[in-house]
Amino acid sequence: MPRYKLTIEYDGTPYAGWQRQAGLPSVQGVVETAIARFCSAEVTITTAGRTDAGVHASAQTVHVDLERDWPADKVRDALNAHLSQAGEAVSVLTAERVAQDFDARFSALRRHYLYRILNRRSPAALDARRVWWVPRPLDAEKMHEAAQRLIGYHDFTTFRATQCQAKSPLRSLDVLDVTRHGEMIEIRASARSFLHNQIRSFAGSLAEVGFGRWTADDLQAALEARDRARCGMVAPPYGLYLIGVDYA
Amino acid sequence: MPRYKLTIEYDGTPYAGWQRQAGLPSVQGVVETAIARFCSAEVTITTAGRTDAGVHASAQTVHVDLERDWPADKVRDALNAHLSQAGEAVSVLTAERVAQDFDARFSALRRHYLYRILNRRSPAALDARRVWWVPRPLDAEKMHEAAQRLIGYHDFTTFRATQCQAKSPLRSLDVLDVTRHGEMIEIRASARSFLHNQIRSFAGSLAEVGFGRWTADDLQAALEARDRARCGMVAPPYGLYLIGVDYA
Repeated sequence: MPRYKLTIEYDGTPYAGWQRQAGLPSVQGVVETAIARFCSAEVTITTAGRTDAGVHASAQTVHVDLERDWPADKVRDALNAHLSQAGEAVSVLTAERVAQDFDARFSALRRHYLYRILNRRSPAALDARRVWWVPRPLDAEKMHEAAQRLIGYHDFTTFRATQCQAKSPLRSLDVLDVTRHGEMIEIRASARSFLHNQIRSFAGSLAEVGFGRWTADDLQAALEARDRARCGMVAPPYGLYLIGVDYA
Repeated sequence: MPRYKLTIEYDGTPYAGWQRQAGLPSVQGVVETAIARFCSAEVTITTAGRTDAGVHASAQTVHVDLERDWPADKVRDALNAHLSQAGEAVSVLTAERVAQDFDARFSALRRHYLYRILNRRSPAALDARRVWWVPRPLDAEKMHEAAQRLIGYHDFTTFRATQCQAKSPLRSLDVLDVTRHGEMIEIRASARSFLHNQIRSFAGSLAEVGFGRWTADDLQAALEARDRARCGMVAPPYGLYLIGVDYA
């Protein structure tokens, strides 16, 4: 069966997360339903990363095997027609025919996430449910400096959800950059893979540094404690975006 | 009574437009209600520009007279607390005490609007109801060149709604710039004042140029015809943003 790689954009707001769940709207469910309508066949799609409820994606990646060898652009356009008709906040950006050994999850070399903080006195109106609104001033430079203590191969127990199902808390973090663009603070994180809630745990703990409540040393001590109780706040899901997945 | 200038951001999606209308949600109504809750007094606010249903603002300006001389920051924070509590997509960015002769409408020297077009094959997901999605390729450079034919003092009858209530169709257009940023095309328009639907009429007519259906000469001929029937499409409201108002 021909395999297709799909790149997908979605607004996470109306969904209970990526993963299909009985009785709840999910991005996976919505995309699988669109494919089923197009192909008249039940399919299961495999994703590069399951996102939580409220988390967005500008470039999520999945693969799916179809029974027929459709032109890739027809797959994209037909899925978008079904998604639009159903009023879903999901769009297929690209569809490509890929080799049978391509796996959206296991072939992924690097995942890129963006976390957005609106740091101003007034609440978000245009960006409501698209950013974490933090009214107290944050020092983005201090956040960036401290973030560099987390780069490298570490036991990230402090920064993963207690319900995280990964066998090992060891991960290699390649990039954790914090930059300010006017009222918006952007945290960009890249790694081969992430633990459950890892980036939201980073964002919340870096906010402690930005407020001046934690120093870079405090952040490092929290990492080295390997203790979930030492994590700062867990930042809300709606500031988080999966923005890209690299493959060979 | 002390006069306050408020700068307001809103998502136009849930509202039937700026203007208060019986039985319909409006931005004016929502802000007046918040002020009434804060001051325990009925007020009427005056705006720099009434926006249509679905049109957004990152910096709308209004003035209002309050019965008491509140600290300006308290006005901002109290209104935001009431707006947030009511779940409204409206945020007060700034509140300032101004002189009694300041008028949000009549003191305005220049109004700035942005029109956003998402020009790609796949529909908008994250930017749904925030952009005009145009799947056919647009030539933004040709649009910009043609737009320059509209700069200056003209009879803009072709580009105003038939229901426009302005006494004169004569307006001076200062800026009409079209730029591409990846898949996004931005049209920026500045003038002392605009006619009803003028920018959406510009955007739709410039799209005709971008598709290659109209030349710059066609656009100029449409202007000179002073005939509403010669306008191109009227672009949808949800791509339009009021982004600033200049005062002396």
